[in-house]
Amino acid sequence: MSNFDDKNIDYKNSVLHVEGVELNKIAAEAGTPTYVYSNEIFAENIINIDQALRGAAHLVCYSVKVASNVGLLKKAAGLGAGADIVSGGELYRCRKAGIDPKKIVYSGVGKAAHEMAEALDAGILMFNVESAQELSLLAQVASDKGKVAQIAVRVNPDVDPQTHPYVATGLKESKFGVPAAEAMELYRIAKNTPSLKAIGLDCHIGSQLVSVAPFVAACERLKRLFLDLRSQGINLTYIDLGGGLGIRYNQEKPPTAKEYGEAVLNVLGDIDDLFLIVEPGRSVAGSAAVLLIKVLYNKRTDFKHFVVTDGAMNDLIRPCLYGSYHQIKTVNEKNQAPLTVDVVGPVCESGDFLAKDRPLAPVEPGEYLAVLNAGAYGMTMSSNYNSRTRPAEVLVEGDSFKLIKQRETYDNLILGEIF
Amino acid sequence: MSNFDDKNIDYKNSVLHVEGVELNKIAAEAGTPTYVYSNEIFAENIINIDQALRGAAHLVCYSVKVASNVGLLKKAAGLGAGADIVSGGELYRCRKAGIDPKKIVYSGVGKAAHEMAEALDAGILMFNVESAQELSLLAQVASDKGKVAQIAVRVNPDVDPQTHPYVATGLKESKFGVPAAEAMELYRIAKNTPSLKAIGLDCHIGSQLVSVAPFVAACERLKRLFLDLRSQGINLTYIDLGGGLGIRYNQEKPPTAKEYGEAVLNVLGDIDDLFLIVEPGRSVAGSAAVLLIKVLYNKRTDFKHFVVTDGAMNDLIRPCLYGSYHQIKTVNEKNQAPLTVDVVGPVCESGDFLAKDRPLAPVEPGEYLAVLNAGAYGMTMSSNYNSRTRPAEVLVEGDSFKLIKQRETYDNLILGEIF
Repeated sequence: MSNFDDKNIDYKNSVLHVEGVELNKIAAEAGTPTYVYSNEIFAENIINIDQALRGAAHLVCYSVKVASNVGLLKKAAGLGAGADIVSGGELYRCRKAGIDPKKIVYSGVGKAAHEMAEALDAGILMFNVESAQELSLLAQVASDKGKVAQIAVRVNPDVDPQTHPYVATGLKESKFGVPAAEAMELYRIAKNTPSLKAIGLDCHIGSQLVSVAPFVAACERLKRLFLDLRSQGINLTYIDLGGGLGIRYNQEKPPTAKEYGEAVLNVLGDIDDLFLIVEPGRSVAGSAAVLLIKVLYNKRTDFKHFVVTDGAMNDLIRPCLYGSYHQIKTVNEKNQAPLTVDVVGPVCESGDFLAKDRPLAPVEPGEYLAVLNAGAYGMTMSSNYNSRTRPAEVLVEGDSFKLIKQRETYDNLILGEIF
Repeated sequence: MSNFDDKNIDYKNSVLHVEGVELNKIAAEAGTPTYVYSNEIFAENIINIDQALRGAAHLVCYSVKVASNVGLLKKAAGLGAGADIVSGGELYRCRKAGIDPKKIVYSGVGKAAHEMAEALDAGILMFNVESAQELSLLAQVASDKGKVAQIAVRVNPDVDPQTHPYVATGLKESKFGVPAAEAMELYRIAKNTPSLKAIGLDCHIGSQLVSVAPFVAACERLKRLFLDLRSQGINLTYIDLGGGLGIRYNQEKPPTAKEYGEAVLNVLGDIDDLFLIVEPGRSVAGSAAVLLIKVLYNKRTDFKHFVVTDGAMNDLIRPCLYGSYHQIKTVNEKNQAPLTVDVVGPVCESGDFLAKDRPLAPVEPGEYLAVLNAGAYGMTMSSNYNSRTRPAEVLVEGDSFKLIKQRETYDNLILGEIF
């Protein structure tokens, strides 16, 4: 689902609204740059995935890395969602949000011992184990605590997700997961280790996938391995498919949640006593937020028209890092013919752009712009580069909105510095 | 100067030291990942540039964006350096560090009105103005305060610095600076505006330049324009050459400070009553620090050997963002034949790597590695991606070291969130 078509982010009376609130009002009260989330879109996206999988026992584990504000996580918790985490910091956030630890799965190639201990103490559902050395350390940490760690092995299905190389994670050259043959070996080790209990099989092939084919291919390989394992006495219950469902940033036509669910259940639906886990992130939060920014200057050269804004690469690094496209709209709807502009920020390098050679109606300093589909990997990848304070975050619900993260202050920049 | 050859970051008794302190000791006390700075290297680099320009009246304005810990800025202040800033946040840092405001120049295409006001209140030396609209706003802000803003116009000399496109800032397509013809016009406006006083001419052509040729080309264009302006009654005092001097990360052979100074003075040295400003950053801090990290796991597949560490792209984004090379050394010196490995972090994407296909002696979990030349654009570009706490920072002086930034805690991650 993309907010291109979403009534919850649209013009009303010629002013761009998120749900019932006009963005000019939020900018005036909360300042800019500010991430503005629609609770309705965020919730609908979770519900749609959940509904799409209702043909099987399943759990939606929201991928916390995508947008991790505790206020958002509380909304996910309220819908019964679990969480996919990749760090002790994300576990901490989930606990603050009241997400049931029994609905938390912990992925990632570099879990530290203290993070394993924290997750064991919390009583999470399972660790998605990514290497033999990790399995061994987890066994030790669990044993030292007199606990049993429930695990899945993350396999690398070697499926090409046809996405940006940085977010393709299921190719055989990838650091993620283990090959099927090694997975079998890790399950044998787990079976012989009292502090480990294998309960699932995990994979994640990549992010921003815009067709069902790679998911189907991954499901087929997982199914074969899952049934193989059962035939060899490794009786697992869970298949964790990971996340990766894409959204429409520009011209993409990603599958709907329904199409995704049908494709997945078509392959996996006939497995007895299966419990399915999915880890949607971008498809939940991506379309749910805009980055609200203010025009500072127009700067025309013989070669370019730059619209300089107070939003920059430190606030939203995706255009710079991945070459990502984000649609940008004026908050005040305009009828003038568009100019072709670069939308750039104040940061000290040429990599600091939000859009290049983009049609945009003429704007004046002080006007607001909305960078669409900014909810995923926006705030969570923000930095203080150039000693810029990070954005505020606002959550809209119907006709009202509330601040869910204060804008940083100069004092925050030097927090913890000793001089 | 690069720490490849620097006695201040070297093995002693088979253990890598920063100055007189072994890195194992710092790791044990401060944990990992940690940025470890050598005061000696940092100071020497400032002194070398300063010395190289002693043939002219000049000021070294350290580029704060590169490494901005207040503890480091205090060291720069103690050496008499000024600062090149790009935001109100950097101004705030400089004030905390006791840098003389009369030695501060403020660059950047997106200065906000409140930042201008803060800089005027502080009494900085000059604003490097980058557009007509900015000049107009600055005049207004200064006028409202009954102050006079001293300015330079940043010209875009259209010199190709032959560096990464993201850090090339002096090409005609760039958002930075204005063409020479427009500069003349802006100076005329300034002359007729009581709240503005033009005192300098500024440029910055890019970062990590490894030959003097682009600097010489820029100096020649600046000189022509500077003398032209004087002939037309615009009597400026300052030429701000910007920064950009590169360092040796791998095979580069950048000019020394002395070679740089000679090349610059060779062009500009004969201008009467000239005061020269330079803004070194990378060449000051780059070689002065290592990122100290710990090995978590070895992970071997049929295709790769991954060394998984607790340092990741959120700690040091340069390899991921620019494809940058950073040499990596084991803290314990080793004689074993190197393996070919990828050094990667725990973050959830394939873009999370510190080195690819790199020779590295075999290492075991718990051992420490040093990512060299990590002082520039390291900590300042770090983020909390994956809800990872940002690194600590340590400053070494001789045989002792001190923490200059505490490692973040989980509580820091949710600072300002309201839920």
